Amino acid sequence: MKPRRRVFVVGGGQSDYLGRARSDFVTRRHPDFGERHNPGLEEHLKDALDDAFAASGVDPSAVQKAYLANFVGERFVNQAHMGALLPRVEPRLDGIPIARVEAACASGGVAIGACIDALQAGVDVALAAGVEIETTCRGAEGVGHVALAAHYATQRGLDRFTFPHLFARRARAYKETFGASDDDLARVAVKAYANARRNPRALNREVELSFAHASTISRTNKAFLDDADLRPHIRLTDCTAFTDGASAVVLATEDGLAQLGIPPAQCSEIVGFGHTVAALGAETDPTRMANVARAAAEAYASAGLAPEDVQLAEVHDCFTISELQMYEALGLCGPGEAPALLAEGHTARDGRVPVNPGGGLLGAGHPIGATGIRQVVEIWRQMKGRCGDYQVPTPPTIGLTANLGGDDRTGVVMLHRAVR
Amino acid sequence: MKPRRRVFVVGGGQSDYLGRARSDFVTRRHPDFGERHNPGLEEHLKDALDDAFAASGVDPSAVQKAYLANFVGERFVNQAHMGALLPRVEPRLDGIPIARVEAACASGGVAIGACIDALQAGVDVALAAGVEIETTCRGAEGVGHVALAAHYATQRGLDRFTFPHLFARRARAYKETFGASDDDLARVAVKAYANARRNPRALNREVELSFAHASTISRTNKAFLDDADLRPHIRLTDCTAFTDGASAVVLATEDGLAQLGIPPAQCSEIVGFGHTVAALGAETDPTRMANVARAAAEAYASAGLAPEDVQLAEVHDCFTISELQMYEALGLCGPGEAPALLAEGHTARDGRVPVNPGGGLLGAGHPIGATGIRQVVEIWRQMKGRCGDYQVPTPPTIGLTANLGGDDRTGVVMLHRAVR
Repeated sequence: MKPRRRVFVVGGGQSDYLGRARSDFVTRRHPDFGERHNPGLEEHLKDALDDAFAASGVDPSAVQKAYLANFVGERFVNQAHMGALLPRVEPRLDGIPIARVEAACASGGVAIGACIDALQAGVDVALAAGVEIETTCRGAEGVGHVALAAHYATQRGLDRFTFPHLFARRARAYKETFGASDDDLARVAVKAYANARRNPRALNREVELSFAHASTISRTNKAFLDDADLRPHIRLTDCTAFTDGASAVVLATEDGLAQLGIPPAQCSEIVGFGHTVAALGAETDPTRMANVARAAAEAYASAGLAPEDVQLAEVHDCFTISELQMYEALGLCGPGEAPALLAEGHTARDGRVPVNPGGGLLGAGHPIGATGIRQVVEIWRQMKGRCGDYQVPTPPTIGLTANLGGDDRTGVVMLHRAVR
Repeated sequence: MKPRRRVFVVGGGQSDYLGRARSDFVTRRHPDFGERHNPGLEEHLKDALDDAFAASGVDPSAVQKAYLANFVGERFVNQAHMGALLPRVEPRLDGIPIARVEAACASGGVAIGACIDALQAGVDVALAAGVEIETTCRGAEGVGHVALAAHYATQRGLDRFTFPHLFARRARAYKETFGASDDDLARVAVKAYANARRNPRALNREVELSFAHASTISRTNKAFLDDADLRPHIRLTDCTAFTDGASAVVLATEDGLAQLGIPPAQCSEIVGFGHTVAALGAETDPTRMANVARAAAEAYASAGLAPEDVQLAEVHDCFTISELQMYEALGLCGPGEAPALLAEGHTARDGRVPVNPGGGLLGAGHPIGATGIRQVVEIWRQMKGRCGDYQVPTPPTIGLTANLGGDDRTGVVMLHRAVR
């Protein structure tokens, strides 16, 4: 639906995304163990809020309504009711309406959607914040937590690694249907990691990923599924890693900008929005993302824009196959054409339609509740030339974000226009 | 904030609330064990949706946006991403935007708030559904799950029973400050259980609770806290019980009613809304609910109504002390006057301002995500004379709902007006 009142992205920020890929991540084997700890839930959230308020120039006391996106804090950090954590972290948010929203990995996207509705309802300045802490347990336990995004009763038992299983199924079907190869998937990871090296807050900023490593199953790039048939279709480098992080964005109406004294030219504008949901656990065509495609259709229609208009996209590359299927669901290319679009460099940072120039989920990390919000912040940053080494050569005028929950169950697609 | 577009409660419903207090609840000792199981998450949700669509006369395919309220499905039933469970349970909801919202025990209230915003943003028919399944584990484990609504890192350790501890603290402070007694608390429970016996979907419909039992610590009405100082201030009958259940409500704008062909006279209208949040874990005055009071002030102001106008209230009696403190936070009486208001019968089903005539949380049950939605459904039912044995003598014109999350951390207060 096209917003009746214009919705501006005033500015946003994030915490420093952290996980085992980082040399300063404290584990038992780290030299600082016992003297230093990794930042926790409230520290990441505070860092993201501080960054968002600083970048936007908005005083926290101007926020009239907020949503907090989080997926499974109940499991990773023993905390629900996280809306009420915001005024603990930022006391100037005391007393405003806040709630937590959740739609698995699309939690951030739906938080922004709920803020857009609030702005239509009469609020003038809204905040969407997202957070996830995922490194508090062993990976084997963590994959169980993430499996709560699927239909647990019927899908948890598919594989010890539920979501890698579901997306390996997509990878196999896509390869079989369109003649794509493991190398095509590896190219997604190589692009993501290369972009992340330019992004000072990316989880994988210190990691070098070669095509040889990404494209080959090996002792250090394992094929790890229990399911022997699907095992060859997903490797470690095809998957996002457990990440701790938070992100936040301030949104405002025209009246809100006037009240804040912020010129529209500081902003990007959300000009199209699509959000669609398909039933958990229902059968789905693994060669494509049909639900994301209908969210995209809504977003394009509400914006009066077409795929050809998109100059930059932040897409939900939770696995390498996701990025390829996203290209197609978003209409950036036709069915089966994604590998060529990528291989020809069109989605590179300096390509025709850069996709995930800051590293995306694979490169920059995927703290689940934060992801959909970081995507919107990235578009704003790129439009405003704020991305430093990962800046695309020409700040784009039209951008797209695509946030995914579960195995193509919740899709949130937005179109953004730079305000000049 | 007063809605710009009028918001109508078209109708709502619920599942049959179930728990150990019910003779047909299946446990290992039940004669049907092995032959019959208690309804699960999807069954409760389906029952509530069916009831809401039947009661409202709305076809599910008319719903344009939905929110699903749930507190800790991640713990009790191993399921997150519950927004995407709605189209699984009701396929005619496929493709619409849906998200789960959570604010601990106020999840239902914030779901309705998010729907109100959606209706302001342009949607004409919205659905709020809430569900919680709480009987899947032992009580000792369950209290740990519920403690995720507090600031877990600093408050879980207060007592094995975190929330009973926090509300025993309120009970003690209230009694010390205002000279109230244990008997005053017992009267809340006795009213709740007596009302529940008239409500065919109440958890405690089969239970008889005498004043003698409720007012006395005994082997069957234990004082159970670890904390010896607080232990005398809360008994089993002062607490809600673990409950399985779901509720759902259809909301619409005037345009929505016209599209549905439903006369406004079928509806109640939400004419005031207040939602405020205070920081998790922050110090609070245990003699009152200061955060609920500010949500109420917002709700009254937006409706242009005052406490004297309220003819019926559904308040969040998670513990007996909560109901007394709610009376005062909502302005139904002054500080310290709640025990007299209750003892004099003013809040009885046939009193001046009936409170929780269907049993409330103590009597009817408290499936957490469902509660804030059931409150709104109860007001609608009472206004429309649909309550059978628990109907108040005169269907009210002005009603109030007050939904609480955590220890006075999230408050959602609404004012409702009957459309005649």
